[in-house]
Amino acid sequence: MLVVQKYGGTSVGSIERIDAIADRIIKCKNENNKMVVVVSAMSGETNRLLEYGHHFSEHPDKRELDALLSSGERVTSSLLAIALNAKNHKAVSFSGGLAGIKTSNHHNNAKIEEVDTALINGRLEENNIVIIAGFQGVSKEGNITTLGRGGSDLSAVAIAGALKADICEIYTDVDGVYTTDPRIEPKAKKIDTICYDEMLELASLGAKVLQSRSVEMAKKFSVNLCTRNSFNDNIGTMIIKERKDMEHPIVSGIALDKSQARVSMIGVKDKPGIIAELFTILGDKNINVDMIVQTVGHDGKANVDFTVLNGELASTKEALKKYHEEFDNIEYDEDIAKVSVVGIGMKSHTGVASNGFTALSDENINILMVSTSEIKISIIVDEKYAELAVRSLHSVYELDK
Amino acid sequence: MLVVQKYGGTSVGSIERIDAIADRIIKCKNENNKMVVVVSAMSGETNRLLEYGHHFSEHPDKRELDALLSSGERVTSSLLAIALNAKNHKAVSFSGGLAGIKTSNHHNNAKIEEVDTALINGRLEENNIVIIAGFQGVSKEGNITTLGRGGSDLSAVAIAGALKADICEIYTDVDGVYTTDPRIEPKAKKIDTICYDEMLELASLGAKVLQSRSVEMAKKFSVNLCTRNSFNDNIGTMIIKERKDMEHPIVSGIALDKSQARVSMIGVKDKPGIIAELFTILGDKNINVDMIVQTVGHDGKANVDFTVLNGELASTKEALKKYHEEFDNIEYDEDIAKVSVVGIGMKSHTGVASNGFTALSDENINILMVSTSEIKISIIVDEKYAELAVRSLHSVYELDK
Repeated sequence: MLVVQKYGGTSVGSIERIDAIADRIIKCKNENNKMVVVVSAMSGETNRLLEYGHHFSEHPDKRELDALLSSGERVTSSLLAIALNAKNHKAVSFSGGLAGIKTSNHHNNAKIEEVDTALINGRLEENNIVIIAGFQGVSKEGNITTLGRGGSDLSAVAIAGALKADICEIYTDVDGVYTTDPRIEPKAKKIDTICYDEMLELASLGAKVLQSRSVEMAKKFSVNLCTRNSFNDNIGTMIIKERKDMEHPIVSGIALDKSQARVSMIGVKDKPGIIAELFTILGDKNINVDMIVQTVGHDGKANVDFTVLNGELASTKEALKKYHEEFDNIEYDEDIAKVSVVGIGMKSHTGVASNGFTALSDENINILMVSTSEIKISIIVDEKYAELAVRSLHSVYELDK
Repeated sequence: MLVVQKYGGTSVGSIERIDAIADRIIKCKNENNKMVVVVSAMSGETNRLLEYGHHFSEHPDKRELDALLSSGERVTSSLLAIALNAKNHKAVSFSGGLAGIKTSNHHNNAKIEEVDTALINGRLEENNIVIIAGFQGVSKEGNITTLGRGGSDLSAVAIAGALKADICEIYTDVDGVYTTDPRIEPKAKKIDTICYDEMLELASLGAKVLQSRSVEMAKKFSVNLCTRNSFNDNIGTMIIKERKDMEHPIVSGIALDKSQARVSMIGVKDKPGIIAELFTILGDKNINVDMIVQTVGHDGKANVDFTVLNGELASTKEALKKYHEEFDNIEYDEDIAKVSVVGIGMKSHTGVASNGFTALSDENINILMVSTSEIKISIIVDEKYAELAVRSLHSVYELDK
């Protein structure tokens, strides 16, 4: 098998951890696998470098910030190679750029455009364990770039896709993806298998183990992803194209997002294109609109509700100021929470939504907004009911069973 | 003017120091100079990385150690570029390899084979301050290499030579090269100008400011070198091909080296090739022989004295064991010191040596060994007289005037 493994910051957070990881890699190698290992910076290291950079400027030069930050992962990669060599296993480390990761020239948030696998394959043929610094690549212009948040996961998935690896294992300090946040519902269970689309919708549940960009790329290149805990030998969560189990549950998990604010425009005038214009304005200002719900109000006027990130509410208010005469009233509410019910099984089952609404109603939780997709129901509730809503939905869909 | 500056570890040892260095660079840039700046790792950083690497192995894999250590200089280079950009001066940083420094593939101690100046020149044309990580390059095989002790100085001189820079300024935390070690002779004076050959002979005096390899390379490519203190605006020491001052002093400085041990082979048999054989044996064992003095003894036998590093005395004894019957007696003495009188002016002056011998004799210091070259007299004395010998020679050659 060709195995790509990726170890996050806490997994390589100390010399002792790197030593432990080396043993884990050797165990896998000895099972007759070819191995490529992608590593993050040692935990704390990226922040240390960032602090240095921000000493000089609130907005350090982006090209130079990339050069600076990329060194964190390179240190880990060579230390891991030293550890493996010391344990008598051939290992070579490479920066992302030297390993063949070509990116766009968008510093701090580059996109992977191509992975040239010639060098990696050559070194694998020589029986090396190939260690690659994550989070980075090189642009056509010859500049070192970094890939933004969760970039090391993305490096691993892109490499696994390009190499047609049999599996891409993402190691963190948690066991996998849970049916909901165990801090909210202690009965939450680890999910054994989940498909890409579900994982994407459960972003908030997976945030600690896997960034959405990586799941999207895994989906695009059909990479078999697996998230595991580097601190134990538990099985983790497999993220794949299609779940093979016939009787998979209707609902896979309940996600909670408290970072949104609700904007309600009541009685929007029936003027062609006004709503499109509003959202174009927000888009131009880089305001990220999440849920959008439109209903018919009185007098043929429409009611339009949408959510934005709390942090972007002020600029949203500013942007909407000159449109106040286009609607009867506008309301803003920061104290809301988005609870999402996600499951590929919804496609073929009826009554999933109504079960959930009933469960919330039984707890006297008022539903402020609803939007649905094929595999997700998102419900906005008062923030104070957030945890209760998660627990009652987790229970009604029998995720604790 | 095209100015190459190099800043050592203490000069860039903190965020505040990097900030100060940025101001110094800008001042030079504003005097209408093109600038290339070579930087070392922040002081302490290389040792931190080395400690990490040595945790896994007493002898970490050399390729990986190079990849690891090279990150120290890269961090400094991007931080300095961030600082300069924040101060509204265009600056770009490069690793040694990306900057065009091609080396041999001898990890941990690579030789610079070529400096491809195309990229540097291009960036200078765009009015950038070009920052280059010192101490490193890349081999034809595509591996990151490091240049060994004093490697950043070597990077700077090689780049200055390749660019035909007008001057190469080496910044440390001392003012320059002194006529002797001021801790031994408080009357020691800073030398304003010195030529390459003198500097090479005064290696021990210059050790804190400049490695011999850099001086050799400066000599080879006729680079005008200057060592300066980054903590003040003093003038420093110019190291050039030939001193222009007609009336330069006969002696430039007095160097002291306590790291040597003396080996005296008394009554070496008159057997062709035996002495060559002895030194070949030592060379094969990588024992570095410094002074060699041969005199005619009694019965046509020769006396051969030589010095080796204290640390290599044990292996020297071991190597000579089976030759003991080739000479009447052999003596070893670790408690010696080598005092060297250096000056290009000696070439054209007589009586320089005898003045020195008289000065030592006046202090009742016994001379154990002497060897002379065109510009240097090296004298071995008992270690307990070392400082007194330095002071009396410093005085007799009027270096305190």
